[in-house]
Amino acid sequence: MIGIGVIGYGYWGPNLVRNFAEVPGCRVVAVSDLLIERLAQVRNRYPAIKTTTDYGDLLADPDIDAIVVATPVSTHFPLAMQALSAGKHVFVEKPLAPTTEQVARLIAHAAECDRVLMVDHTFIYTGAVQKIKDLVTEGRLGQLYYYDSVRVNLGLFQHDVSVLWDLAVHDLAIMDYVLGEHPYAVAATGVAHVAGQPANIAYLTCFFERNLLAHLHVNWLAPVKVRRTLIGGDRQMIVYDDLEPSEKVKVYDKGIFLQNGRSGAQDEEGIHKLLVGYRAGDMWAPQLSLTEALRVEATHFVDCIEHRRRPLSDGEAGLRVVRILEAATRSLANGGQPVELSREQVYT
Amino acid sequence: MIGIGVIGYGYWGPNLVRNFAEVPGCRVVAVSDLLIERLAQVRNRYPAIKTTTDYGDLLADPDIDAIVVATPVSTHFPLAMQALSAGKHVFVEKPLAPTTEQVARLIAHAAECDRVLMVDHTFIYTGAVQKIKDLVTEGRLGQLYYYDSVRVNLGLFQHDVSVLWDLAVHDLAIMDYVLGEHPYAVAATGVAHVAGQPANIAYLTCFFERNLLAHLHVNWLAPVKVRRTLIGGDRQMIVYDDLEPSEKVKVYDKGIFLQNGRSGAQDEEGIHKLLVGYRAGDMWAPQLSLTEALRVEATHFVDCIEHRRRPLSDGEAGLRVVRILEAATRSLANGGQPVELSREQVYT
Amino acid sequence: MIGIGVIGYGYWGPNLVRNFAEVPGCRVVAVSDLLIERLAQVRNRYPAIKTTTDYGDLLADPDIDAIVVATPVSTHFPLAMQALSAGKHVFVEKPLAPTTEQVARLIAHAAECDRVLMVDHTFIYTGAVQKIKDLVTEGRLGQLYYYDSVRVNLGLFQHDVSVLWDLAVHDLAIMDYVLGEHPYAVAATGVAHVAGQPANIAYLTCFFERNLLAHLHVNWLAPVKVRRTLIGGDRQMIVYDDLEPSEKVKVYDKGIFLQNGRSGAQDEEGIHKLLVGYRAGDMWAPQLSLTEALRVEATHFVDCIEHRRRPLSDGEAGLRVVRILEAATRSLANGGQPVELSREQVYT
Amino acid sequence: MIGIGVIGYGYWGPNLVRNFAEVPGCRVVAVSDLLIERLAQVRNRYPAIKTTTDYGDLLADPDIDAIVVATPVSTHFPLAMQALSAGKHVFVEKPLAPTTEQVARLIAHAAECDRVLMVDHTFIYTGAVQKIKDLVTEGRLGQLYYYDSVRVNLGLFQHDVSVLWDLAVHDLAIMDYVLGEHPYAVAATGVAHVAGQPANIAYLTCFFERNLLAHLHVNWLAPVKVRRTLIGGDRQMIVYDDLEPSEKVKVYDKGIFLQNGRSGAQDEEGIHKLLVGYRAGDMWAPQLSLTEALRVEATHFVDCIEHRRRPLSDGEAGLRVVRILEAATRSLANGGQPVELSREQVYT
Repeated sequence: MIGIGVIGYGYWGPNLVRNFAEVPGCRVVAVSDLLIERLAQVRNRYPAIKTTTDYGDLLADPDIDAIVVATPVSTHFPLAMQALSAGKHVFVEKPLAPTTEQVARLIAHAAECDRVLMVDHTFIYTGAVQKIKDLVTEGRLGQLYYYDSVRVNLGLFQHDVSVLWDLAVHDLAIMDYVLGEHPYAVAATGVAHVAGQPANIAYLTCFFERNLLAHLHVNWLAPVKVRRTLIGGDRQMIVYDDLEPSEKVKVYDKGIFLQNGRSGAQDEEGIHKLLVGYRAGDMWAPQLSLTEALRVEATHFVDCIEHRRRPLSDGEAGLRVVRILEAATRSLANGGQPVELSREQVYT
Repeated sequence: MIGIGVIGYGYWGPNLVRNFAEVPGCRVVAVSDLLIERLAQVRNRYPAIKTTTDYGDLLADPDIDAIVVATPVSTHFPLAMQALSAGKHVFVEKPLAPTTEQVARLIAHAAECDRVLMVDHTFIYTGAVQKIKDLVTEGRLGQLYYYDSVRVNLGLFQHDVSVLWDLAVHDLAIMDYVLGEHPYAVAATGVAHVAGQPANIAYLTCFFERNLLAHLHVNWLAPVKVRRTLIGGDRQMIVYDDLEPSEKVKVYDKGIFLQNGRSGAQDEEGIHKLLVGYRAGDMWAPQLSLTEALRVEATHFVDCIEHRRRPLSDGEAGLRVVRILEAATRSLANGGQPVELSREQVYT
Repeated sequence: MIGIGVIGYGYWGPNLVRNFAEVPGCRVVAVSDLLIERLAQVRNRYPAIKTTTDYGDLLADPDIDAIVVATPVSTHFPLAMQALSAGKHVFVEKPLAPTTEQVARLIAHAAECDRVLMVDHTFIYTGAVQKIKDLVTEGRLGQLYYYDSVRVNLGLFQHDVSVLWDLAVHDLAIMDYVLGEHPYAVAATGVAHVAGQPANIAYLTCFFERNLLAHLHVNWLAPVKVRRTLIGGDRQMIVYDDLEPSEKVKVYDKGIFLQNGRSGAQDEEGIHKLLVGYRAGDMWAPQLSLTEALRVEATHFVDCIEHRRRPLSDGEAGLRVVRILEAATRSLANGGQPVELSREQVYT
Repeated sequence: MIGIGVIGYGYWGPNLVRNFAEVPGCRVVAVSDLLIERLAQVRNRYPAIKTTTDYGDLLADPDIDAIVVATPVSTHFPLAMQALSAGKHVFVEKPLAPTTEQVARLIAHAAECDRVLMVDHTFIYTGAVQKIKDLVTEGRLGQLYYYDSVRVNLGLFQHDVSVLWDLAVHDLAIMDYVLGEHPYAVAATGVAHVAGQPANIAYLTCFFERNLLAHLHVNWLAPVKVRRTLIGGDRQMIVYDDLEPSEKVKVYDKGIFLQNGRSGAQDEEGIHKLLVGYRAGDMWAPQLSLTEALRVEATHFVDCIEHRRRPLSDGEAGLRVVRILEAATRSLANGGQPVELSREQVYT
């Protein structure tokens, strides 16, 4: 039985406690938070869980094997480092840390301590993204052409991070998992419409080898809520709409093909044209697992601890996402100038 | 009674002839095309219209006051120049010409000849865009924050121009008309997924003064058709969905506001936060004119000739759009490097 | 401070306890249920609430002023009667009772005991239905023409009541509230596709004076979920779609009109035709209150007790709905034969 | 080469002429109409087609093998009878005739004259309905449970026939084709909201053997346009939405099943319950033929003449539809009283 300690009981903490409380093979031993009202909520709902305002109590508790960090981003690094040093496995809310340098140190320290380090990339544990990953891996889409996502709504403006770090982090985590490739450059543009605040609308382009292009649109100031991703390949294409109540993933047997045996033709105006044909077939919406993503993820974390497995969203996944966010932030500050991600940087 | 001559009876020509044939105050005198089969179609449908394979016959015809150019883009400039020299008013399919230099020369020549020069920016004559323009002009949206459009579908791959010149031209014409402002820089990224062909997917960002940002997504290789534009302001916001059968324009009385009397506050974690409030009100879908845009536009052209008025989509409008396309093409070729549009360039 | 006792902690009970627990001016004193596991859940979440397997304890408790009945329909009548006899106000889940005779006796007994009797017609307390009621009352729709609702999905098959008593009861409660009129006859058809079980698909027509027609479609065996009501009037029309995330109520300024000054005309084939004209105007989706309906309803119950007001969903409302359900069940059993609801029956 | 003569060039006639003009193996020889303006349109578009105001000219023309009747319903019977007597094959707009008695006489006369009699049930020739028919025939849906259609919009009020004869005729033709079964009784309710005019809103129920139920909702006075049919079976279910631009037919692998080996169980409240389980699988939208239905239908008519085949929409199909409309009209006039369709009536 893995003992879990949760640091932070704000917005996301209650969801983490609720899920870890119901995963077989683990139990939530204690929760810490700076606010005693929140701790009262914990005791009210879970009388058996210990509470404290001092997270140090959790690090010192021999019944606790793993620490879940659900605090503001700026505190992720020191808390996770201390937890690893205390011999605990660590599960950290996204993004793993605010800089690649800190993420790299966390990865190194976890390796030294021989502990599991996992970042909470929740979406990759949804039935929808799991299915998309399967389809891509099976080659159903053929060669990938593009990845295009839109994640916009009204609110919630953050005061300390831009919309990239708040919303695009989700899409980058999904993209990293689904594509299994790393961009060699990124470019981002965006604007802060409230003076003195971080950007509330942003567009992020990721350049990959072999003409694969990814693009993300994130916006805190949209009149409607949109959560839609298009993934195009040379065999099939996917529309993933997370707001659809039931058919979130639609697979289209559509595409183009080049006319066989000839690369082009003379058209009536005497111009040499390549003949591009269009193929339209069935659409198919596979049945998806309805298990709550956080439940799947919490179960996976416990499983990785027990069997010393590497999590799907390990420190490296966290690093790849933070590296893109960091480069995108730099590009945005430079008016959209593309920023290269050297291969050494990616894999060091 | 204004006499009209139409050069080109391919994809768009039949729509132009049909509409000009029904506008009071003008009549279609003659149509020219290189293909005699097409001319047979003209005679079959409109026995009173003369046909010829030599467009020179139209330029020489004293019954013809105005020439409509509906030929491939590469021929727009010489045809329009000759028509102006022949003393004809000219209406040219979009884009007006393939380079700003040619467009500028067309504008200058039309001025010299004292003839009307109009470019076929069809969408600005739709009921939807007219209504949006009214709302923006009335100040219903307040200060403009962003303009975001998506125009994607499967096909029709062009062999001579990229998806920017084929699809984004529509959005740029709408944007130019609605915003009434000119970007100082643009950046574009895109990919050609068919070797040796122009880009079939592209993202275009336009930077304006006062933190206004515009972004266009165009794609010939999408599994679904999308025609959606979001326009955000500090008072109201618009969703324009051209595929909606009836409510194409929705106006949302939504937005943010800063808490009055104070610019921020200390939150529970001791961090200084600006208090951004959210405002949600009614949504309203105004009744739109259902008149075919091309009919409105053809009527407007005739009216401009008769009363020597400047068309809404005059040569300058054509120039502003082509200037952006030209700069975007350069940016795309340079991997997304932003390209500045100097003020002098814009207004010369 | 009104003391509340809740009988039944199955499907709906937890929602009732949660809401009454947070309404100012009342507190949940005790909960009874036959299953001790459920009572353990109550104690876990609400340590201050007493629990018992004997509902008699609640009736005898002097701290309890009002009883909330959330048990199977067949037990509503005896429980509510005993609660009234014990001097308690009573709030009963829908439908109020399985027969009009029982409902009438409950109404009479509540009057004798001078206690508040309220039925849980949840939907009439939603922001959407409240807004629709306002619009109808203000005359925005003009004379009402029809009320058409569809409430279909896959599941949940009930074993003891037909789909009419399970799903149509919601629409009848809304219809009764919004229209403020009573049908003089009903007709229903339906089928049980599982042998020996109640009907799982049904169509119910209600006939009103002045050519007002209402029709309800309910189905437990539909591949998609639909919750849509059309309300037509001679001035405006409403579409109420409860599955829309934000714009649940849309008001259309559309309709017909008869050509002014003349009742008809001779058409080209020499037939006398009435000239019906069509009017199409704006669509408007009013901002709706987002307060949870059950919260509004619980607050209203407490307010009715404190100020001795008649609830919106009083015993008479419950009676009108059950009377239609009873007649519809008879019609359905007779293959769709219409059943009259005599005026005396309605008002006795 | 089959010679075609078309009587009537009003609303539907131009579509018929356009399609027959392009079907290989036939040619449109002549068109008659009472209005000379319409005949001028014919000559303008089709210089080779003869025109006349006297349909008798068509009946007497030896170059004409088949007559297409596209006139008001009240004239279908005499025109079709005369055409058959003149030795012509006949294609009649829907509905075939205003009474079953007239339809029966047409069928008998066509048999005597050994001519093809076909009714224009356009929708059964669409790619969508053809696909649905295939799926039902293959047993994909299993045993059929219900057929539910909604066909509503604003307009076009007819002065001579009710909304049943104008709109429900389409759904009855589809239903007849897809189900391949005949109802034993029908019931209909409806209202005329314009005094002195036929019903503009109607609900029609059809009762079939083996618990199959069909229901149609038609309305000329709806604020939105809906064209949606649900077809439920015990294996799969279909949603057919004719307004969807691309995925008009969706097949849901969903349904219920009875728990294996046991017909029920005791639930916690001690009530005997049947255990109904729910099954949810993939959704699939098959690629549909995009050929215009009227083209398919015209080709089929010519093929039936050439090869002496019985049309899919033969006189009997017309009879089955008109029989239901006639009975529904009687039921509607009697306040919704069900009307039986005796087997003898159906097959005589």
